[in-house]
Amino acid sequence: MSEVVFQPVGKRTSAAPGDTLLDVAQAAGVGLSAVCGGAGVCTDCRVRVLHGPVSAANAVEQDALADTDLHAGLRLACQTVIEGDGEIVVDVPPDSLSAPQRSQVEGEEIPLTVAPVIQVSDVIGLPPSVDDLRGDWERMQGITPSDWQVTAPVLADLPGVLRGHGWRARMVTRGQDVVRFLAPKAVPLGFAVDVGTTGLASYLVDLINGETLGIAGATNPQIAYGEDVMARLTLVMRDPKGASRLQTAIVAGLNDLLHEVCAQAGVTASGVLDVVAVGNTAMHHLLLGLPVDQLGSAPYVPAVASALSTPARELGLDVAPGARLYLPPNVAGFVGADHISMLLATATPDQLGVTLSLDIGTNTEVTLNADGRLWCCSTASGPAFEGAHIRDGMRAADGAIERLIWRDGELRWQTINHAPPVGLCGSGILDAVAVLREANILTITGAMQRGHPGVQGENHDIHYEIAPADRTGHGRPVVISRADVNEVQLAKAAIRAGIKLLVEQAGLAETDIDRVIVAGAFGNYINIENAITIGMFPPLPPERFQQVGNAAGIGAKRLLINAEERARAGDLVRRLHYIELTNHPAFADRFSQAVMLTPDPWDE
Amino acid sequence: MSEVVFQPVGKRTSAAPGDTLLDVAQAAGVGLSAVCGGAGVCTDCRVRVLHGPVSAANAVEQDALADTDLHAGLRLACQTVIEGDGEIVVDVPPDSLSAPQRSQVEGEEIPLTVAPVIQVSDVIGLPPSVDDLRGDWERMQGITPSDWQVTAPVLADLPGVLRGHGWRARMVTRGQDVVRFLAPKAVPLGFAVDVGTTGLASYLVDLINGETLGIAGATNPQIAYGEDVMARLTLVMRDPKGASRLQTAIVAGLNDLLHEVCAQAGVTASGVLDVVAVGNTAMHHLLLGLPVDQLGSAPYVPAVASALSTPARELGLDVAPGARLYLPPNVAGFVGADHISMLLATATPDQLGVTLSLDIGTNTEVTLNADGRLWCCSTASGPAFEGAHIRDGMRAADGAIERLIWRDGELRWQTINHAPPVGLCGSGILDAVAVLREANILTITGAMQRGHPGVQGENHDIHYEIAPADRTGHGRPVVISRADVNEVQLAKAAIRAGIKLLVEQAGLAETDIDRVIVAGAFGNYINIENAITIGMFPPLPPERFQQVGNAAGIGAKRLLINAEERARAGDLVRRLHYIELTNHPAFADRFSQAVMLTPDPWDE
Repeated sequence: MSEVVFQPVGKRTSAAPGDTLLDVAQAAGVGLSAVCGGAGVCTDCRVRVLHGPVSAANAVEQDALADTDLHAGLRLACQTVIEGDGEIVVDVPPDSLSAPQRSQVEGEEIPLTVAPVIQVSDVIGLPPSVDDLRGDWERMQGITPSDWQVTAPVLADLPGVLRGHGWRARMVTRGQDVVRFLAPKAVPLGFAVDVGTTGLASYLVDLINGETLGIAGATNPQIAYGEDVMARLTLVMRDPKGASRLQTAIVAGLNDLLHEVCAQAGVTASGVLDVVAVGNTAMHHLLLGLPVDQLGSAPYVPAVASALSTPARELGLDVAPGARLYLPPNVAGFVGADHISMLLATATPDQLGVTLSLDIGTNTEVTLNADGRLWCCSTASGPAFEGAHIRDGMRAADGAIERLIWRDGELRWQTINHAPPVGLCGSGILDAVAVLREANILTITGAMQRGHPGVQGENHDIHYEIAPADRTGHGRPVVISRADVNEVQLAKAAIRAGIKLLVEQAGLAETDIDRVIVAGAFGNYINIENAITIGMFPPLPPERFQQVGNAAGIGAKRLLINAEERARAGDLVRRLHYIELTNHPAFADRFSQAVMLTPDPWDE
Repeated sequence: MSEVVFQPVGKRTSAAPGDTLLDVAQAAGVGLSAVCGGAGVCTDCRVRVLHGPVSAANAVEQDALADTDLHAGLRLACQTVIEGDGEIVVDVPPDSLSAPQRSQVEGEEIPLTVAPVIQVSDVIGLPPSVDDLRGDWERMQGITPSDWQVTAPVLADLPGVLRGHGWRARMVTRGQDVVRFLAPKAVPLGFAVDVGTTGLASYLVDLINGETLGIAGATNPQIAYGEDVMARLTLVMRDPKGASRLQTAIVAGLNDLLHEVCAQAGVTASGVLDVVAVGNTAMHHLLLGLPVDQLGSAPYVPAVASALSTPARELGLDVAPGARLYLPPNVAGFVGADHISMLLATATPDQLGVTLSLDIGTNTEVTLNADGRLWCCSTASGPAFEGAHIRDGMRAADGAIERLIWRDGELRWQTINHAPPVGLCGSGILDAVAVLREANILTITGAMQRGHPGVQGENHDIHYEIAPADRTGHGRPVVISRADVNEVQLAKAAIRAGIKLLVEQAGLAETDIDRVIVAGAFGNYINIENAITIGMFPPLPPERFQQVGNAAGIGAKRLLINAEERARAGDLVRRLHYIELTNHPAFADRFSQAVMLTPDPWDE
């Protein structure tokens, strides 16, 4: 028997000679992608064998993989066979992982010095006696109480810490504010969160060494009150209790994540001394309890755009009493701090040449860095890629079809965790439209070819059956309807029109773009070529695209770890030129062209 | 018919010729004192008639009042008869009022410049447009957002204020912190509170002109958890939930007062932008939720002695989100910020010669200013003068006997609001002991003379009947027992021993004291001569005593109105020499002498 270790997910399992690495991975619950079912066609299951007894690259691999990939040691797990005993260590690139597992693995981060806004000092108190009746705060050596701002809840810890640890304590400060008294050697913690309209992603960070101690994600609980930003703003504007309901919901959601990451690290939430949250302007306002009437109606202005540092417990977060919540600046009503965070994490403002950065979500923010000049916009791409408003749409969960290919005259699919299919998640929806378009089952306008064997129903009900009822997990077929295709067209048209307008603003053509950085959970899972096929992205060579995952969340972590990053956020906002699309004279025109299912809709 | 106006209580009533002013006052509910029942003997009902048709001073008045009083226009209300029609305006000095009404009238206050810690600026915002999509906070003219610290709950008011008032607002700041955005011309308010172990006194103040807009008092709701400081500290040390129970109770009590004073002024509590609270060290810690283990056990040190400024809403006070609660410094475990506040209000540290300042309560704090050198101590006088641990003791409420005299061989009493007697409040208890001592019904050791007609019962039950059952409000006699006398002896001995030790510390004799400032609710109501008779105070000429009422509360108001006063509080604490009595070698000796019921116990 061999032992196979999958890195960096950290799964270890035993395996027998003759098994393929794909067999072993699937048995061990490592979500390796393999839409072709192990035929060596899709090349999704690429891995790197670091050492151990496995077969040499076979003819299928030499055919399927580029020479550069082969030289880099990449293998197809479906073709790599275990050949003997001993440990086999396999590195699984994030791209080869199925959606839910991929989010557990972070993208590559740009290195950053650990220099948070909090400072740590180790202090000593003199024990009291009948001759020294000073207060505990007054008996700290080398500390002049009047030099510090300290609140009652922060002071409340001091007597216990001093008496419990031989009159020693760790004093955590932020400027002249005392944030907390910790036990000696206790680790000061930070919590960073990306508050998406649909999803939340959070990180627990050691503020001494910058290490990530816990990661957790969840659905934004506000989704119960409206799937998109406008639905939630409308609720708040109509219902006097709406604002407090939505605030209560998001704070509860963040507290759940906070306790989850703390449990992962075996610490308590009260050790969290600094918090960073990034989100679009609406999520920012709803979290902070700021009014949204002026944000939800023309001309759509925020209550505040500057960076904020506000007491975290006052909002209901279960962190230390002295902790503050930092929120980077907003650019405009619909370009929020999450986009700033993403741009910082990807170093977009520092790129040479022409860089396009997109954060795809219910709203998609787009920034163009054209030789140092920065333009940005926000475009209402809607929740179709989150699975909403799609007949068999669903979130990325077991049984969601996440990848589709057309092979040997039929549609093949891969589901999350290889469960029987029950619906389509965002990347599957995009693949379905692209594949059906390439197979000419969809026309350029999105119409379905009647008479094709897979096309069923009539008129409003016309749809293509992706998985028949006898092969699904719930006994009903999984289909994509004409209406679903339309939703995808509207979503992708909004994104493409936004890209086009920014490029025009810079006096460039789409082909001038040197680099496309695609961020966001959905953006991380999609097949870029399919996105080009349907006209969501400009038809650029695939190597110009970089899928960076939750860059907004990574950026939030950076704002936690390094105070200078906060200054950079302010500088970036001043450099960005915001283009409001809602009243842009050319937007409607570009949008109506961009609904066409073709890589280059501008010539049609 | 005449119309009589009583000032400054502000009562207006109609009256007929032939009525005395005392008749009119009692009918109108003005609580004029008159223990002798209108015989012109007690001289309690002194008033000043400012104008109107009344009789000239009669022989009784010329006999009863000093020449200086007669020249100053003082009259006895019981002897002053209405003689015709027209308005009569009568000024009622605080000393002539019955206890509950007296607390409504403030003592004379030392003038103070209005210079609070908050600043007010009137600001203008530019309305947004499609060409100006800045946030509301960024569109304020002449304000650079990065110059200010502003929290989310404070910013939440801005959009509504700007849009509701033609893009104008009043910005209230404290240093670089924004405290609140108010409507233009709105009055910034402050709330000052004296947190006594037994009673709470509170003031609502206009922070523009320093005027008092509302006054309210209440019992400290923590009393349900223990009548004295030690009982409450013990509860917290034993019961893990004790601290939060006591904190919840006091915060609820303060919120009730806050809403009461705001209702008096027709304003809402969210307009309160600064709060000052003074209390003894235990009340200070219990309000702030600070641990008390180290305060309740030797060597009795506070968690913090320095002045604190802590967010008020974080503690649960219903004030503006940006408001802070300021608490002046504590001197020691049992000399709290309330005493500092009282000393400031009475200008004790600035007096020439020898000044003794006392704040009588469940704990009595004593400060001696001997030619600029300041000593202080705290002495456990107990709750006897609050009516607790006294058989027929009660708080100052309707039917409480508040004053007693011996006249024509019998005891005469006056009750609050002239209701039938139901018990004795603090001043009545003190009077009872003094009067019975002067009538030799009590011996110098506090024993009751058996055989005297009023003395009834045996052994443990021996008592003097003050009011027989057929004259009381509840059909039972009102009595003072030997045990009650003993409680008074312990209480007054603690105070007197404290005074004596401070005087000795200064190398002086009690007779060197030039001035005695007596503060506190109880201290304001007592008969000084009776207090001397029982040996609570040194036998000094009555004119050296000054009863100043709730000086701690007045001091709290001063700390609200003028930021410099806060600096003076810090200076004062540094000047004060604290004498710990619990382990003082001479205290037990002085205390045991001071229990004697005589003005000068030191020679006995």
